[in-house]
Amino acid sequence: MIMRDYPSSFQLFFILKGSVIPKIYGKIIGVAVLSIAVLLVDQLLWELPHVSIGAMGIFGVALSLFLGFRNNAAYDRWWEARKLWGNMIADIRNLGRSLTIFMPDSTKHREILSLAVAFAHLHRGFLRGVDASDAVTPWIGADLAKSLSARKNPANAALNELSQKIKDDQSLSGFGQLKIAELLLSLGASQAGCERIVTTPLPYVYSLLVRRTTYLYCGLLPFALIESTGWFAPFFSAVVAYVFFGLQAVTNELELPFRHVQNGLALDAMCRTIEISVCETLDLDPPADWAVVDHVLT
Amino acid sequence: MIMRDYPSSFQLFFILKGSVIPKIYGKIIGVAVLSIAVLLVDQLLWELPHVSIGAMGIFGVALSLFLGFRNNAAYDRWWEARKLWGNMIADIRNLGRSLTIFMPDSTKHREILSLAVAFAHLHRGFLRGVDASDAVTPWIGADLAKSLSARKNPANAALNELSQKIKDDQSLSGFGQLKIAELLLSLGASQAGCERIVTTPLPYVYSLLVRRTTYLYCGLLPFALIESTGWFAPFFSAVVAYVFFGLQAVTNELELPFRHVQNGLALDAMCRTIEISVCETLDLDPPADWAVVDHVLT
Amino acid sequence: MIMRDYPSSFQLFFILKGSVIPKIYGKIIGVAVLSIAVLLVDQLLWELPHVSIGAMGIFGVALSLFLGFRNNAAYDRWWEARKLWGNMIADIRNLGRSLTIFMPDSTKHREILSLAVAFAHLHRGFLRGVDASDAVTPWIGADLAKSLSARKNPANAALNELSQKIKDDQSLSGFGQLKIAELLLSLGASQAGCERIVTTPLPYVYSLLVRRTTYLYCGLLPFALIESTGWFAPFFSAVVAYVFFGLQAVTNELELPFRHVQNGLALDAMCRTIEISVCETLDLDPPADWAVVDHVLT
Amino acid sequence: MIMRDYPSSFQLFFILKGSVIPKIYGKIIGVAVLSIAVLLVDQLLWELPHVSIGAMGIFGVALSLFLGFRNNAAYDRWWEARKLWGNMIADIRNLGRSLTIFMPDSTKHREILSLAVAFAHLHRGFLRGVDASDAVTPWIGADLAKSLSARKNPANAALNELSQKIKDDQSLSGFGQLKIAELLLSLGASQAGCERIVTTPLPYVYSLLVRRTTYLYCGLLPFALIESTGWFAPFFSAVVAYVFFGLQAVTNELELPFRHVQNGLALDAMCRTIEISVCETLDLDPPADWAVVDHVLT
Amino acid sequence: MIMRDYPSSFQLFFILKGSVIPKIYGKIIGVAVLSIAVLLVDQLLWELPHVSIGAMGIFGVALSLFLGFRNNAAYDRWWEARKLWGNMIADIRNLGRSLTIFMPDSTKHREILSLAVAFAHLHRGFLRGVDASDAVTPWIGADLAKSLSARKNPANAALNELSQKIKDDQSLSGFGQLKIAELLLSLGASQAGCERIVTTPLPYVYSLLVRRTTYLYCGLLPFALIESTGWFAPFFSAVVAYVFFGLQAVTNELELPFRHVQNGLALDAMCRTIEISVCETLDLDPPADWAVVDHVLT
Repeated sequence: MIMRDYPSSFQLFFILKGSVIPKIYGKIIGVAVLSIAVLLVDQLLWELPHVSIGAMGIFGVALSLFLGFRNNAAYDRWWEARKLWGNMIADIRNLGRSLTIFMPDSTKHREILSLAVAFAHLHRGFLRGVDASDAVTPWIGADLAKSLSARKNPANAALNELSQKIKDDQSLSGFGQLKIAELLLSLGASQAGCERIVTTPLPYVYSLLVRRTTYLYCGLLPFALIESTGWFAPFFSAVVAYVFFGLQAVTNELELPFRHVQNGLALDAMCRTIEISVCETLDLDPPADWAVVDHVLT
Repeated sequence: MIMRDYPSSFQLFFILKGSVIPKIYGKIIGVAVLSIAVLLVDQLLWELPHVSIGAMGIFGVALSLFLGFRNNAAYDRWWEARKLWGNMIADIRNLGRSLTIFMPDSTKHREILSLAVAFAHLHRGFLRGVDASDAVTPWIGADLAKSLSARKNPANAALNELSQKIKDDQSLSGFGQLKIAELLLSLGASQAGCERIVTTPLPYVYSLLVRRTTYLYCGLLPFALIESTGWFAPFFSAVVAYVFFGLQAVTNELELPFRHVQNGLALDAMCRTIEISVCETLDLDPPADWAVVDHVLT
Repeated sequence: MIMRDYPSSFQLFFILKGSVIPKIYGKIIGVAVLSIAVLLVDQLLWELPHVSIGAMGIFGVALSLFLGFRNNAAYDRWWEARKLWGNMIADIRNLGRSLTIFMPDSTKHREILSLAVAFAHLHRGFLRGVDASDAVTPWIGADLAKSLSARKNPANAALNELSQKIKDDQSLSGFGQLKIAELLLSLGASQAGCERIVTTPLPYVYSLLVRRTTYLYCGLLPFALIESTGWFAPFFSAVVAYVFFGLQAVTNELELPFRHVQNGLALDAMCRTIEISVCETLDLDPPADWAVVDHVLT
Repeated sequence: MIMRDYPSSFQLFFILKGSVIPKIYGKIIGVAVLSIAVLLVDQLLWELPHVSIGAMGIFGVALSLFLGFRNNAAYDRWWEARKLWGNMIADIRNLGRSLTIFMPDSTKHREILSLAVAFAHLHRGFLRGVDASDAVTPWIGADLAKSLSARKNPANAALNELSQKIKDDQSLSGFGQLKIAELLLSLGASQAGCERIVTTPLPYVYSLLVRRTTYLYCGLLPFALIESTGWFAPFFSAVVAYVFFGLQAVTNELELPFRHVQNGLALDAMCRTIEISVCETLDLDPPADWAVVDHVLT
Repeated sequence: MIMRDYPSSFQLFFILKGSVIPKIYGKIIGVAVLSIAVLLVDQLLWELPHVSIGAMGIFGVALSLFLGFRNNAAYDRWWEARKLWGNMIADIRNLGRSLTIFMPDSTKHREILSLAVAFAHLHRGFLRGVDASDAVTPWIGADLAKSLSARKNPANAALNELSQKIKDDQSLSGFGQLKIAELLLSLGASQAGCERIVTTPLPYVYSLLVRRTTYLYCGLLPFALIESTGWFAPFFSAVVAYVFFGLQAVTNELELPFRHVQNGLALDAMCRTIEISVCETLDLDPPADWAVVDHVLT
């Protein structure tokens, strides 16, 4: 996730970090070059068939419909993913508070909360496709870390382990069991929600429709601009290509919000937030906040 | 569901699997041919009445309104269906955890969770209109599978059977009964949600309005393009037909998300995910993930 | 509710059942006739003031804004209404399961579930403004049916009666009381939700604004089409009138989703679904599914 | 709230009650007069600078964006407010049912439900800024009515009083306390939701932006219509002014849905619905429905 | 938050407080000056390349798409933030009522509710990045205020402290523990929701795309207006710049709703509402409402 102040009006045009331009400059240049070629041929060699700007307008409304829909859907996924992680942060903090209220035997609090931290890291590992063992081991020891990681769904296994711990405690009243079970179940629901997002991309057919339509649009545009913008055409084509290819590139990133990309969610930082909260609940020294490196929070 | 990486810019135009083109190429060609005919008659025989591109723009805004609405509504159905199945996955996992916490007599866990797996398969069978007996039998035996399948609503009958099992267990405390009953009730709510989607299509009148409007639009378009795009007209008509008929075809698939089509939900794979989770909870050997065949996950 | 397969491309233009055309053909013809008149006067008698198609475009965007908003709002009401009924189906099934788990004295199950079926029918009667006594009597007897129907809000009275039954049962534990009370309360919430939809139409002022604007638009359109579509104008006007009046007519039906109209919700069929579920829970012979008659499910 | 049947096509243009025209006719006439003046000056005195209709189109898209957003946001507030009141109706009915189930000492039911009715009236009074003492006194007596009204937040004080009553009852089991407390808490949440809507208008800056933009748009329009609509211009201007100022006036009313205006919510009628439900629960004679006076339900 | 009546039509154009103009007048003037320069050069020196207004229309639709999306997303954040604070107000009031019902030892009520008030202030301090000690000390004393403020997340620490208080009370039944724990957990969830909003801005790439596109649009507009609006061009450019830069400036403020800006949420006033409710619950003299100063409620 990019963390950066709003640039001044001047800086605005020179920022690359966090911009989508490095990903699409090839396409922008391609469209501009095509536009120049069309102009030159039309002026110097023979007249090309023109497309009226009104016809492009019809096409543009349809393209906006597609891009707008896909953008909304992708952003909703991104924001829902963030909400699910926010729920997990709240649930783990609330787990600490529920232990305080309902489990008199405070020696077990640390063990249980450590397992909850491990759950968060294992879940992050699963979502990003990375190995989270190093982050997990300090909390639950190498043996358990290894045995959990060996499961097909390590985060789910961590929650199962947690329920075993709850069951074994004799000091919990029925009310305490009920409340703490509810928090585990809520963690399970958030986890399944994230899995839903990661295993179910937007229907593939949309991506094809949108991408193909964008290419066709930007390929036809130079023929429409001959008349309506004259020698502005290459610049104008490039701007429109920037707008449409740019929106599409953004959407691709937000659609799968857990990946390790610039606009992905800051899962490392959120796991650290969980660690800090757990440490403060257990009266341990909390670690430092996860650092923003080169404007990026991972 | 299509599972496929983003194609390169070059490949993009040659992908058919997952594309909507095989379903609508007839219409695209039809519109292009009409456009050529209109052009030829207009140029060679007698001048046809032209429609100004501005008038088509007015029409196009209305059509976009319809298509956009229908697309959003269909996508919402598809995504809600996916959420409901995600809830069922989470609820069945959570059922396992609740049994761990609340039901000391662990000999019954397997029986109960097997019945939950059977519920998922029977529900899938109901939604897709297929026979799920083969998938159910290994979990609950042929007799019970048969008697459940004989009911009008087998998945509902499986949940009723589950509640019978809960009732019969003497080791459950009242709190355990409460929590586990809540999970059954949540499964019942998700099941009813899926039934709602499958039995209530989008109002039929929308389909008529949208389809008729699309046909009229694409039929009038060639008359509008004579002037504004010249010899580009057939190509342009085909592109616009691709865009509008394509969106409509996508929408038709997403509207009924449980069907066995390319962009339908991967119910088989989700039932397998449930089986894996249940096996891991019961310390059994989990089966392999459901395989993607030819880019399609069923 | 219309239940019908997608028509072929050819059939599409000849379907009347489920179409909005029988409701608006007068207006479509009116607009076409006006357009012919304008054309004839303009060509044969004296030149009429023209409206540029661009000006109509501005107007059209505003009209689309109105129609789009109203359509979304009406569809949301329709779909929310369907969700509330879906919740009631799930709650009544879940009531059966909760009785299994929590009420050992199974002799009362039938009485309680019959009352729940009666609730559904009385609620349907209230929403549609019809007398549901005939449907209710077989379940709860003529006397109770009569006394409930005499109340101002019979469905609410049925729920009150249900809570009396719960109170009178001595075999229910506190947990059972809690869970079953929650289901009654959830039924009460769904019922109040339906009442909200039925007693609170969309703000009247929207209907006026939208209808007046549509009339003005279709009245001005022929003056704009003289220039831009020539002799296509009557046809074009008729198509646009079909689109805008059609969308408005659809919206009127969806706005009040409980009425006995073609696109209203299938309350009869849903009450039957409830009856089937209750019969299967009580091991009684379930009745047949509610039949689709002439493509309409009531 | 306006309660009125759909008018016939003829009546449609002569309805004033429920229409927005009485509030904006000054502006409509102003725009029409300006348009006539512009036309006359342009034709008779000297040519005015024209604005192309295309430029107005760009402006119009932006204005539609603003008006559409503000309209959606205002309608959402109106509908959420209605939902919150619907929840309160359901909660008070459910309170009656919960008392039946959980509080054997039925002598207190009346006292508690009367206090709930008083809560609804005091809440209505707070939201509308009116004195609700007259409506409250018959239910809870003059003394308590007075002491509650003296608080800064009388409705909240009524809920506090209710919780005192619950606490004092010895016949309630813990389960009963829990369930009834949840209903009180739900009433408190709905009340706070209504307060949120009433104390947090839409950001003021939107109102300025939208209103200013509408004025500028309608002021520039006559210059654009000289060319594109000729002598239709005054009529056309008036229609567009009707559309845009009309939508804005509607939005102003819906934004604060509790006020005593034509399109405000029918709080009086909903309080009466609550009274009827409580009377029927207590087997008292229910009062008549709140009457629609001159098509308005308050 | 701006609290101000709707201005009259005349005042409307002279209001600065609450308007976005003071923030963007530089840009508006810049665009107007550019437009004058373009006009003069084009008329007096040499003809500049024109951009057709139709081409700008295509661009304008794309820009509207971006601005509309970003505006909706920012407003949703603002409104969700307000809902979360509304939930906290309701939860703290409900905490008071739950103490009444479930905690017979009323001597502790004050202590617990004071801590809840402190939680609200500390949370406000965290969100706004200000020191809330002065507001907290009168409620919980200087020592506790200091020790809480020393934590990394003081509001979370206050909730942990609250759960300690609940645990220590012997007079609470299990039901009371359960209900009150749920309220604490709900406060924790709202707090985490606010943290989510404050730590996760809208994806940075959107801000870049939107701002760059707006600049490009307003920079190209004067070339398009030469033809289509003539000497109106500078005025027209300024108006369009006002609309687009204005919407963008509004969006920037709503995106981070907790900041101490004109359109930020009135956190001070909401904390005061909580104080008043707590005082009224404890029968203490409530403080005055937070005052609106110069039309601004902080």
